[in-house]
Amino acid sequence: MIRFYSPGIEQTGTLPEDESTHCCRVLRMREGDEIETVDGEGHVYRCVITNAHPKHAGVEVLERTDQPQNWRGRLTLAVAPTKNADRMEWLVEKAVEMGVNEIVLLRCEHSERRKMNTDRLERIAVSAMKQSLKARLPKVAGPVDYKDFIKEHADTREFRCFGYCSPEVERRDFGQCCTKDSDVVVMIGPEGDFSPAEVETAIKAGFLPVTFGTSRLRTETAALYATAAFHVINNM
Amino acid sequence: MIRFYSPGIEQTGTLPEDESTHCCRVLRMREGDEIETVDGEGHVYRCVITNAHPKHAGVEVLERTDQPQNWRGRLTLAVAPTKNADRMEWLVEKAVEMGVNEIVLLRCEHSERRKMNTDRLERIAVSAMKQSLKARLPKVAGPVDYKDFIKEHADTREFRCFGYCSPEVERRDFGQCCTKDSDVVVMIGPEGDFSPAEVETAIKAGFLPVTFGTSRLRTETAALYATAAFHVINNM
Repeated sequence: MIRFYSPGIEQTGTLPEDESTHCCRVLRMREGDEIETVDGEGHVYRCVITNAHPKHAGVEVLERTDQPQNWRGRLTLAVAPTKNADRMEWLVEKAVEMGVNEIVLLRCEHSERRKMNTDRLERIAVSAMKQSLKARLPKVAGPVDYKDFIKEHADTREFRCFGYCSPEVERRDFGQCCTKDSDVVVMIGPEGDFSPAEVETAIKAGFLPVTFGTSRLRTETAALYATAAFHVINNM
Repeated sequence: MIRFYSPGIEQTGTLPEDESTHCCRVLRMREGDEIETVDGEGHVYRCVITNAHPKHAGVEVLERTDQPQNWRGRLTLAVAPTKNADRMEWLVEKAVEMGVNEIVLLRCEHSERRKMNTDRLERIAVSAMKQSLKARLPKVAGPVDYKDFIKEHADTREFRCFGYCSPEVERRDFGQCCTKDSDVVVMIGPEGDFSPAEVETAIKAGFLPVTFGTSRLRTETAALYATAAFHVINNM
């Protein structure tokens, strides 16, 4: 069955505009047809279309199911946006498919891109959530300043780490030190990596410098490797 | 230092045409400049340009270094090409960055794409190899028929498995059954998944049905998850 995104459907009884268009204009669904919707907060609804309007389709909820948590622990990816926006869009799609709780865009000293269209990233996240049959929408936040992000996560009980390329700092492999069922925060720097001052700040705040395997990875590849590793470890 | 791809440089003493253009025209390097090249077979060369020709640049090898194997075990990804060619190109880039030994394009019963421009995929592999500082070029082969691929890998000592979506077949999580330092072969089906007959053939030939975490993943995402998992396990 085709899945639509419908935040607050129990209150509104209508699909959002773009989902209405997709449902009633593109897919030509009609009154009486059944659809499935998710609200991004863990609920799946079986609905029947009561008004096949191409901009605000009316639906009646027949049944609500609560989707269990898809994994234990929380994964927060904090990533400095890449110069090329496509690479971030790709990362959001893939990380949501594999499973992530929050993606935070970081503004770092060496960031070449300091702004990013988060609306577009959110739409990609919605689409990947539906595609991978999830009912929870990960949050896409930021860009936030690196220091503010660090402050927010100082002294938490999360497993906090950051990828770093230079062997001048002693690092451990992410897969060796991240443990099952943990709340995990991973920071990934921009193309020019974190600055020495940023590395110092992170270490002082309790973030562990890590590597992701033995290869030098691009920003978005490192972030996706961390996402996959989180799930590999949690499923062991 | 900038890295160029130069298969057979010890014999030819020249860079291939596209690398010559990049070196001498785009980057405007001149006679006497030093460059680094890799041959795709594990050798890194320090060279000096002796003829800055934009189509066949001449170089003299000053030093040859052998790059140790980047990981133990071999990873072969056999993937049915996705309808959208971009997704395969992306997969090749990311898998080569993370590390793969061979990518085989599979022709399956439900394949919507039966042909693929492997030249283009090879160029992407070369570029990802250089980017991730590797000296070995993974092979990109195929498309080959599913049955032929299975025959070639029947009764080997490799850890052989295939991703399968339907819970009707008993499956284990890839991360739980793939062991460290193994030679691993992973088959990933097309958008419509493997057919029941293909599943039977694979199981008879000793391939294990597996899942990749708890999410439903697209073809290319499943292949990349397997690649990351292989390295997570090998680095533990």
